[in-house]
Amino acid sequence: MSIAEKIRTIAVEARQASLAMARLSSKVKNELLTDMATALTDNAPQIVEENRKDLQAGEKNGLSAAMLDRLMLDEARVKAMADAIREVAALPDPVGEVTGMWKRPNELMVGKMRIPLGVIGIIYESRPNVTSDAAALCLKSGNAVVLRGGSEAIHSNLVIARVLKDELVKRGLPSAALSLIPFVEREGVTEMLKQEEFIDVIIPRGGESLIRFVVEHSKIPVIKHYKGVCHIFVDASADFEMAREIIINAKIQRPGVCNALETLLIHRDLAESFVPFIYLTLSGLGVELRGDAAFRRFAPMAKEATEEDWHAEYLDLILSVAVVDGLDGAIDHINRYSSLHTESIITADYANAQRFIREVNSGVVMVNASTRFSDGNQLGLGAEIGISTTKLHSFGPMGLTDLTTTKFIVYGDGQVRP
Amino acid sequence: MSIAEKIRTIAVEARQASLAMARLSSKVKNELLTDMATALTDNAPQIVEENRKDLQAGEKNGLSAAMLDRLMLDEARVKAMADAIREVAALPDPVGEVTGMWKRPNELMVGKMRIPLGVIGIIYESRPNVTSDAAALCLKSGNAVVLRGGSEAIHSNLVIARVLKDELVKRGLPSAALSLIPFVEREGVTEMLKQEEFIDVIIPRGGESLIRFVVEHSKIPVIKHYKGVCHIFVDASADFEMAREIIINAKIQRPGVCNALETLLIHRDLAESFVPFIYLTLSGLGVELRGDAAFRRFAPMAKEATEEDWHAEYLDLILSVAVVDGLDGAIDHINRYSSLHTESIITADYANAQRFIREVNSGVVMVNASTRFSDGNQLGLGAEIGISTTKLHSFGPMGLTDLTTTKFIVYGDGQVRP
Repeated sequence: MSIAEKIRTIAVEARQASLAMARLSSKVKNELLTDMATALTDNAPQIVEENRKDLQAGEKNGLSAAMLDRLMLDEARVKAMADAIREVAALPDPVGEVTGMWKRPNELMVGKMRIPLGVIGIIYESRPNVTSDAAALCLKSGNAVVLRGGSEAIHSNLVIARVLKDELVKRGLPSAALSLIPFVEREGVTEMLKQEEFIDVIIPRGGESLIRFVVEHSKIPVIKHYKGVCHIFVDASADFEMAREIIINAKIQRPGVCNALETLLIHRDLAESFVPFIYLTLSGLGVELRGDAAFRRFAPMAKEATEEDWHAEYLDLILSVAVVDGLDGAIDHINRYSSLHTESIITADYANAQRFIREVNSGVVMVNASTRFSDGNQLGLGAEIGISTTKLHSFGPMGLTDLTTTKFIVYGDGQVRP
Repeated sequence: MSIAEKIRTIAVEARQASLAMARLSSKVKNELLTDMATALTDNAPQIVEENRKDLQAGEKNGLSAAMLDRLMLDEARVKAMADAIREVAALPDPVGEVTGMWKRPNELMVGKMRIPLGVIGIIYESRPNVTSDAAALCLKSGNAVVLRGGSEAIHSNLVIARVLKDELVKRGLPSAALSLIPFVEREGVTEMLKQEEFIDVIIPRGGESLIRFVVEHSKIPVIKHYKGVCHIFVDASADFEMAREIIINAKIQRPGVCNALETLLIHRDLAESFVPFIYLTLSGLGVELRGDAAFRRFAPMAKEATEEDWHAEYLDLILSVAVVDGLDGAIDHINRYSSLHTESIITADYANAQRFIREVNSGVVMVNASTRFSDGNQLGLGAEIGISTTKLHSFGPMGLTDLTTTKFIVYGDGQVRP
């Protein structure tokens, strides 16, 4: 069989398996996940051994130390993967939830019930823990899953997928509910992206170039985010100490992630006092500031920001800063440059807080909180399957319920349409 | 400017206008719609005059009498369009609704708030009333809308769009919030479908060939349904009278629509008595029945159903009928041939009713009710923008809230991530 035929078969069988998965009780799904977690730790030595093959190949291919670290599995990391599966097992099952029900004038009862999406495709890069994390979330929500990990982690991913699949088989469940594309060729991705008849949605997890490749080649709907250019707006009434703590946290606590702060907006009325204060604070912590003219008037040592800086996701200790004309200026700037990820206002003003919440249409909009909370776990969704900066289906961090949809259910007693 | 450039400009300006529309209060939107309704009736003579040009061209081009009737506007039909806009004005505004809010252990309050999708593209065929219906729904939900109607209705659509746009201008609102693609060339559609940077979703309304063309050419997500192969399953415990009333209603009341019954499934235990009963009833009403072997055993005069019949959306007084092995047989048949539109069970058995509701994953699943209720208005959504048989974003009939998404809102008092 060619790669294309094999991938089509995987997709067809996943679709078939999804029908059975959709009917499983919460109890069966939770037991399955718990057994999968146990199986991972039981098979940790074998997983670590397979992982070593990937590490050796990675070293030979000149992967960076950081990349090799992301790829590396030891028994502790395998245990962490098992724990993550158990956490998913402990989450409430979204399937079957009736999100509302109402009565029509003809006494028909009409409601909406959560059901699985069907078949989820996950395309991801080096971290092998995504294999078990994503599988657990998709199976818990009653879906079948087709995984395609990075070629550099192929041995690790194959053994993890096999260990998890074995648990499906042991329970008499369709093993095709969890598949890993076993090909390292790029064709493994492009053929998968053609299976629009059998795969309902693709969720890519990785860098911007991976995501752009997936979007470019997919005939299946893609839920994605390219990048996070997160803004904080310091309003005229902001408490300086609170602003400082939040800005430091958002910029410095973990600068390499998508919910880190990238652009700071400062109310013009505050510039004279706040600009020197925040410039000294952040420079002292090793942050490079790139400001507009109004910012540099009060912080002349700051670099000059160019148009590019307002679009930039630095993922580094660099921050662009603009002085804006109050809330309207801040909202205009955000509307213009936003990646629709996360924005926060620091304010003591009730009306401005409410306007910011209402009028800024990013996936997550905050008042007096660090952008670093923009994460499924931190927001209370439980484990996160990804973040969406497109508005269709899901917007913002995505949890289990985002892997479901709702159907209408109608209870009648013989009604016909007049 | 070329057609491509002009369409890009329309899309860019719609995106810009959508930012302003998203901020409008419910009061302003409702007043706008009410004035649009009045403007339509005020301009009825002019609309009817422009419509006459379309009718004359249609006659010359040999449109069928049915097509010409769908195209035709008189003052009464314009008044009906105005009334439909007023009905949308009277619906609750989904924008700003907080669909849930919870407290995190660190006292952050996290919620989800409904916001508009942004820019909606509607591609439709002959009926000019879709121009005002779709515009009203998109504007009420805080979106901008780009309309592309059928070439045969171009004069009617242009004048209707101009009358509605004038009301935006009168109120100082961006006229680009409502645009009609003024080109009858096919390029008018294909270029529109390339504006994925500016248009958030495309909703096609029309026949299967239009929808397939849109899906084939669109870089923008499409919410759609191809067809409705609706099933009714008559369970062993069904009340014959109730079954008869519902089947007659679902098949005959309006056979040419997507929620009409196309395939009837009968429990094997019931076949001997129910098959002759329903065969005589439906034949007597002029319905052609095409049955499987088990059906024809008790209704030998029925035609033989072929594999094609199980896939067919007849939109006519034809019905395919199969005898199935109970509920499992019915669910298997539906899973295999379903268009994911609407299915109903006729039963007196509690457990079977619940299993059918849970296990059949079509957009609308019913107990003891006619499939003809599968319609936004009938289900209580108010006006309907379309029906989705794909599970992403919306599934089943779509109303105002399906033109929105939710963002996360977070209220803090200085929280930072540890």
